[in-house]
Amino acid sequence: MKDKEVIDKITELGKSLETNIKKNNPPKMSIPVRGLSNVHFDKANNLLRLGRKTSSRSFLNIAHARKFMQTLLIAAKCQELVGRGKTASIRELYYQLKHTIADTKENTFEDQSESDPLIVDLETSLGVLREELHLKADDKGTLIGNIIVEDSGDTIDCSKLGRSGLSIPSIVEHYKFKKVTADYILVIETGAMFDRLVEEKFHIDNNCIMVSTKGQAARGCRRLVNRLATEKKLPVIMFTDGDPWGYYIYSVMKAGSMALAHESERLGTPSIKFVGMTMTDVEEYKLDKVTEKLKDVDKKRISELLQYPWFQKKEWRTELLLMSERGVRIEQQALASKSLEFVAEDYLPQKIKAGKLLP
Amino acid sequence: MKDKEVIDKITELGKSLETNIKKNNPPKMSIPVRGLSNVHFDKANNLLRLGRKTSSRSFLNIAHARKFMQTLLIAAKCQELVGRGKTASIRELYYQLKHTIADTKENTFEDQSESDPLIVDLETSLGVLREELHLKADDKGTLIGNIIVEDSGDTIDCSKLGRSGLSIPSIVEHYKFKKVTADYILVIETGAMFDRLVEEKFHIDNNCIMVSTKGQAARGCRRLVNRLATEKKLPVIMFTDGDPWGYYIYSVMKAGSMALAHESERLGTPSIKFVGMTMTDVEEYKLDKVTEKLKDVDKKRISELLQYPWFQKKEWRTELLLMSERGVRIEQQALASKSLEFVAEDYLPQKIKAGKLLP
Repeated sequence: MKDKEVIDKITELGKSLETNIKKNNPPKMSIPVRGLSNVHFDKANNLLRLGRKTSSRSFLNIAHARKFMQTLLIAAKCQELVGRGKTASIRELYYQLKHTIADTKENTFEDQSESDPLIVDLETSLGVLREELHLKADDKGTLIGNIIVEDSGDTIDCSKLGRSGLSIPSIVEHYKFKKVTADYILVIETGAMFDRLVEEKFHIDNNCIMVSTKGQAARGCRRLVNRLATEKKLPVIMFTDGDPWGYYIYSVMKAGSMALAHESERLGTPSIKFVGMTMTDVEEYKLDKVTEKLKDVDKKRISELLQYPWFQKKEWRTELLLMSERGVRIEQQALASKSLEFVAEDYLPQKIKAGKLLP
Repeated sequence: MKDKEVIDKITELGKSLETNIKKNNPPKMSIPVRGLSNVHFDKANNLLRLGRKTSSRSFLNIAHARKFMQTLLIAAKCQELVGRGKTASIRELYYQLKHTIADTKENTFEDQSESDPLIVDLETSLGVLREELHLKADDKGTLIGNIIVEDSGDTIDCSKLGRSGLSIPSIVEHYKFKKVTADYILVIETGAMFDRLVEEKFHIDNNCIMVSTKGQAARGCRRLVNRLATEKKLPVIMFTDGDPWGYYIYSVMKAGSMALAHESERLGTPSIKFVGMTMTDVEEYKLDKVTEKLKDVDKKRISELLQYPWFQKKEWRTELLLMSERGVRIEQQALASKSLEFVAEDYLPQKIKAGKLLP
């Protein structure tokens, strides 16, 4: 979405309130409900989606008045940010808006926990991505490989960044993909495994772009993978630890998350496939000596995953039940027990070539 | 230290054990004690240092035998890594060494918590940096600015990386600084503040290199700042939140940490200065509306810092006592309450120009 359109949408919101007021009607806004009751799994598209339930926020309802005022302050500030070509972190936004209202002792905001949910309200009701409101989340993640990105006037050849790689910023809307010669994207959960594969020159030998999420992927990282998958039609393969946490990180990359169901389409990548670690790998590669016993918290998480509609594919049920049955988990780095090179020279190429990927 | 020297040091260790055995003496190693009792603050050099106390690890002492065997396994594997020009994460090292000893039911290692402290034993007894043993910690941190780095054959102009920046790897020993035209380094605690300053082009307008630590700095980040400060004689200025956690992060960048006292000289940067946030800033810039109340855990941390010998400089005691007295902390991002640009156009340039820096 262009900056101009975002500004127009915010202006429209303001105008509709103005119309209310001029007609002596109470000014109000319609906000999509974001609770679990309004999130469903769209099986056909493999995406978590927000439903159609909305609630109304009215200025003349005493229970809504403060939030109403706060939502408009945020909307006005975002319009200013977009207009000036500036971005702000959600913490900066809070600090920018916090002040004592003239002639009162009332503060506009007492705590960031007041402004954060209202940002999401604004995103959902306008149908605008947070990044399009010029608001930033934390950044995390690294990229390396055969892609040339234009970022703010600089042309960055990500295949010429040594062993370091590009730091993925929190907003990647401005990235232009000048040239992409890689065949696919490999998304890697841990920083240590990313380092291993960089050292083994996996991205060079296999002509892929490698992205490290360093745990749960940040929004910038998810958006970047989404953009490359949709705009450049690049296949995406993910590689995580063989435990419920790794599998969940994969599911968020694929289908989006419940908390951000309204943005799944722009943050999720339904075409992504999963290469490992699987419970089947443990047998196939004789890794039983280097598994770890499940802790209670792992077992609980497995049960939760087994309830989620997006984990009902038989391949995933098989893996989760097998994990539960054997009572073990397996880490990416456990492959080092074979040899340091095993993951890059055998495991990944074999599984990818044979198409041994989970949906 | 060159790879060759590291290999020689490990060989020497092996030879001394061989000599013991040939003379029918029990093979033993001398390991520096790493407890707090053997750490002191070297005031003249502003570095935490390990003292001279050592303990002996003997193969024929039943309480030492397992650790002795494990230490040698680690030493041999590190020698192999260095010899082959490979690096490994400490987790990979653990997986590489974990196996059942032939004809027994005994595993070499049961858990990584067994191998990690022995790595440090090896570092301290050989006087070798972990990175020189080709072992990696997690990576974290981003760099941007007027410096050209050569990394594994690639020449990276860090002033041409848009708003993204270079991901700082866990090992930077191989970095060659081809050209450094920046006047100083600004080290920034939070990713969000780094982003703000990148957006304001602070590094361009002020000709500095900016490094984001994203919380407590990783070893790679600390080593990089240390190398730039010592090899390129660059002044270093740090910018953290105004709370005991930010101040401690600064102190680790400057003097090193207790746990890694044996590496302070190569990880610490005693010449670093501190620009903010300070309690004095709160008055000077009228920020009292955007401070946060201290929590109990903050108060406890302040008391601890006040005990540390390296926080006894009067400027630091003043700040900590003031913080305690007022019962508030202040975040870097609170400066956004003035304007988004305030930190880059007023706060930092004014304080740096006037030399209002803490030691």
